[in-house]
Amino acid sequence: MTRKASGHEHRIGDCADAPPLAAAALPITLAACAPLRGAAPGADPLPSWSEGAAKQRIVAFVDTVTTEGGKDYVAPAERIAVFDNDDTLWAEQPMYFQFSFAPDRVKALAPQHPEWKGKEPFASLLKGDVPAALAGGERALLDIVMATHAGMTTDEFAALVKAWAATAKHPTTQRCFVDMVYQPMLELLAYLRANGFKTFIVSGGGIELMRPWTEQAYGIPPEQVIGSSIKTKFELRDGQPVLIRLPELNFIDDKEGKPAAINLHIGRRPIAAFGNSDGDFQMLQWTTAGSGARLGMLVHHDDAAREFAYDRESSVGRLARGLDQYQAMDWGLISMKNDWKVVFAPAK
Amino acid sequence: MTRKASGHEHRIGDCADAPPLAAAALPITLAACAPLRGAAPGADPLPSWSEGAAKQRIVAFVDTVTTEGGKDYVAPAERIAVFDNDDTLWAEQPMYFQFSFAPDRVKALAPQHPEWKGKEPFASLLKGDVPAALAGGERALLDIVMATHAGMTTDEFAALVKAWAATAKHPTTQRCFVDMVYQPMLELLAYLRANGFKTFIVSGGGIELMRPWTEQAYGIPPEQVIGSSIKTKFELRDGQPVLIRLPELNFIDDKEGKPAAINLHIGRRPIAAFGNSDGDFQMLQWTTAGSGARLGMLVHHDDAAREFAYDRESSVGRLARGLDQYQAMDWGLISMKNDWKVVFAPAK
Repeated sequence: MTRKASGHEHRIGDCADAPPLAAAALPITLAACAPLRGAAPGADPLPSWSEGAAKQRIVAFVDTVTTEGGKDYVAPAERIAVFDNDDTLWAEQPMYFQFSFAPDRVKALAPQHPEWKGKEPFASLLKGDVPAALAGGERALLDIVMATHAGMTTDEFAALVKAWAATAKHPTTQRCFVDMVYQPMLELLAYLRANGFKTFIVSGGGIELMRPWTEQAYGIPPEQVIGSSIKTKFELRDGQPVLIRLPELNFIDDKEGKPAAINLHIGRRPIAAFGNSDGDFQMLQWTTAGSGARLGMLVHHDDAAREFAYDRESSVGRLARGLDQYQAMDWGLISMKNDWKVVFAPAK
Repeated sequence: MTRKASGHEHRIGDCADAPPLAAAALPITLAACAPLRGAAPGADPLPSWSEGAAKQRIVAFVDTVTTEGGKDYVAPAERIAVFDNDDTLWAEQPMYFQFSFAPDRVKALAPQHPEWKGKEPFASLLKGDVPAALAGGERALLDIVMATHAGMTTDEFAALVKAWAATAKHPTTQRCFVDMVYQPMLELLAYLRANGFKTFIVSGGGIELMRPWTEQAYGIPPEQVIGSSIKTKFELRDGQPVLIRLPELNFIDDKEGKPAAINLHIGRRPIAAFGNSDGDFQMLQWTTAGSGARLGMLVHHDDAAREFAYDRESSVGRLARGLDQYQAMDWGLISMKNDWKVVFAPAK
């Protein structure tokens, strides 16, 4: 049975001002709704990965768990792979997608909230000063999220996010956020799926900020996207059932929260986990503590020329504990500089 | 790639004291790990369903949403079907599986809790008087659940449930609970999946009380099981990461909670929903309020001879609002007596 295009009003592909790269030069194009075709039989499934320890580790792991009769064979149903999103599957440094979404929402809502001009974190946001707005820490972030993500139905919010994703641009590269996905990770997702894996996102980002575009960008459907969330409430409006987004936190899907969320949503322990920051440490720890062959890998942002270089000192996406312990934990490190021949997928 | 049997220590099939029915007389057997083979091409995919309005509605709906070029065609990714579990996919009247699990756990734990002898709801449970224990209402139920489901790791709890499911018997039929699945619903699950649907359970029951056996019983993997839950906490025990089940409610997946849980776990609106009680009303309402072709159906327990007959007056699984409104809502009613040629799947 073939698949018709989903009826998004705003197609992610609308966000395509950047000059398209030569798609023909790259094996997998991010064509609308069919982004992740597998490689041809016999072809290298990971052509954007340099031959090196990271690629070898991935391929050896997949061979191990898919070799029938082998002692570490894993049945397809148990082949669960989890991926952090921000800076693991796409680039967000130095400005997270959701911190870009929120200021525009604050501006749009400001006329209904004259008091925001004298009230942090909104006053700073209205001046475009995101760092000052976030100076209030987690409380400030929560205030922003609640003011911009709640008080509407889930359908209304999804429409806002779709429209946003179709146009939102990265502040320094001026490319669409949704075009800043990593080509090697798209290949990895496709390779794992071709080998019977089910791929999940497990992100600290808002679950409803990801779902409207992850299927097209990564081939990951909404039911395989796990993230932070606020509570919703079922009610009838004009006789129609709606889910209202409440200004009340439901779950923070970060650090210790990631294994708990994996348990709640997936209900079994993954056998492979990919992250990039110390917020992913417990997810990799939980994944690789299971019996049998396990794969834990951290993307190391060490490529200032093609992307960004940061780790221990970064305020977002900090990687310190992971760098100290990855060898003792028997995890792999992916050097963007050395392991990836290309970084970004071609623009659509 | 073939699939190896999962490594359950207790196989659900161990619970097979009841004399097996004549499996050859039924088209789909609940063989271990391969319960839901599709029907042969051209064969009736729903052989246990009588020709009648219920079957016609199901088949017409599936034809409608899978006919390419039709105005109500639905892409496979959007073909989400949700099923209540208790008394929709399997029989639990007059005693729910989890109310059978809890008393035995209370007995096992009683030596550590001498105070329970003088404290409700535990005192009644220890005497085997479940109705008296539940007389305290939701508070009593919560006390029981917290005392019997928390204070251990998720792995420990899953092992308890697996062992329980392998031996637990229905109090009146003396058949294993996990053998009391409805043959027509197994065929329906297989038929929908053969037509590109993803099938989910959305139950008021404890999510971790279902997951250890739903894959084998229904072909529904843990990541497609949604239910009520308690909170868990990540911690290290002897250097190993574990998730501890806390005596703290996380979510009640019933009534208005079902659409909210569907949104959180699945992230898109189902196009088909099946339930049996007023606890499923909002789930059907949410499902069928979407645009395009929709299917909402209620199983009506009207077969005292082969199963049980109850609706408006029942204390559990009450169906009153649904009976009053199903026609106005354009939902279908499934009469167990008239629409099902057989009720139970053959024992394994």
